[in-house]
Amino acid sequence: MPKIAAYSYEEYLHLIKSFHGNLAPGLIIGGFMVDSALGMLPEGEFFDAVCETRVCLPDAVQILTPCTIGNGWLKVFDYGRFALAMYEKYRGEGVRVYLDAGKMESWPEIKGWFLKLTPKREQDSEKLFSQIKQAGKDILSCRKVRIRPDLLKKKSLGAVGICPRCGEAYPLRDGDACRPCRGESPYQTV
Amino acid sequence: MPKIAAYSYEEYLHLIKSFHGNLAPGLIIGGFMVDSALGMLPEGEFFDAVCETRVCLPDAVQILTPCTIGNGWLKVFDYGRFALAMYEKYRGEGVRVYLDAGKMESWPEIKGWFLKLTPKREQDSEKLFSQIKQAGKDILSCRKVRIRPDLLKKKSLGAVGICPRCGEAYPLRDGDACRPCRGESPYQTV
Repeated sequence: MPKIAAYSYEEYLHLIKSFHGNLAPGLIIGGFMVDSALGMLPEGEFFDAVCETRVCLPDAVQILTPCTIGNGWLKVFDYGRFALAMYEKYRGEGVRVYLDAGKMESWPEIKGWFLKLTPKREQDSEKLFSQIKQAGKDILSCRKVRIRPDLLKKKSLGAVGICPRCGEAYPLRDGDACRPCRGESPYQTV
Repeated sequence: MPKIAAYSYEEYLHLIKSFHGNLAPGLIIGGFMVDSALGMLPEGEFFDAVCETRVCLPDAVQILTPCTIGNGWLKVFDYGRFALAMYEKYRGEGVRVYLDAGKMESWPEIKGWFLKLTPKREQDSEKLFSQIKQAGKDILSCRKVRIRPDLLKKKSLGAVGICPRCGEAYPLRDGDACRPCRGESPYQTV
């Protein structure tokens, strides 16, 4: 039976349902990816994480490691590559794991799902989940990486001021008003 | 005793430690903010969430609601405003809650921490935590909002191709190679 970090496979599926809401195939594979990366890092070091997609994968990292969006140890780049890296947080040396489309010949359901060759309504999810479990780490590839030094620096928010337009606190480095008041608001003006 | 969504105050502090790693003041306040927003939304509706800062607040949303980064129901804008919104996911109508610097006169420790008036080494964290618990929702303000329609559309990744440079799967809409291969890689080339 495969294990996912500190959990049994079944336990990990429960964690996915509880945190993510539904049993997304990408999140199950993400568990194997995190487990692979953890296994290649030196024990006892502090590490940070990067995801190269915002779909599913960030939740595998947040469920299985101490790295979260809110504590800043997980960064998400919306590049649409199904890959993650974990690295020593000061020097940036670490390991990158990705879902390898070149290793899927024996796993047609996974290939059809990942490369969107199979239309959604023709997907056999039972087969897909069973192949994901069987394949485990066979469909992953890894390599050593070093994170760009400018991404290591912890950016402090710096001094805080009160925005003269909305009256809310904002980082003064953003200029003489906060970014939402300068046109980036996510809300409609009524 | 204050409650935070479905949890007692103490239970919520345990959840923070387990998910986020440390008892960040902003995450405790974030719990009151999520609780306020949940209380103002119609029951039984599906909602999405927006955070206007990437510091702490996204973890309050991920701990207390079904919205996560990986399932796409939580979006994070790095505007440095300590505010969140929850809204009906199709029409975008909802409520915005923010930490209101104008309501902190009776809570000098919170004000000193939030506006960075007190240098970190002079902060009295016992006092700060006690004021946060006592203040509860008294330091928050709320208003109804409507999310910009372009943010409601769920952006599909579209068709998938194999990048001719790295050999990995990527969204074809990004061009004839994936974004990291076109200069946006988070890694150093060795």
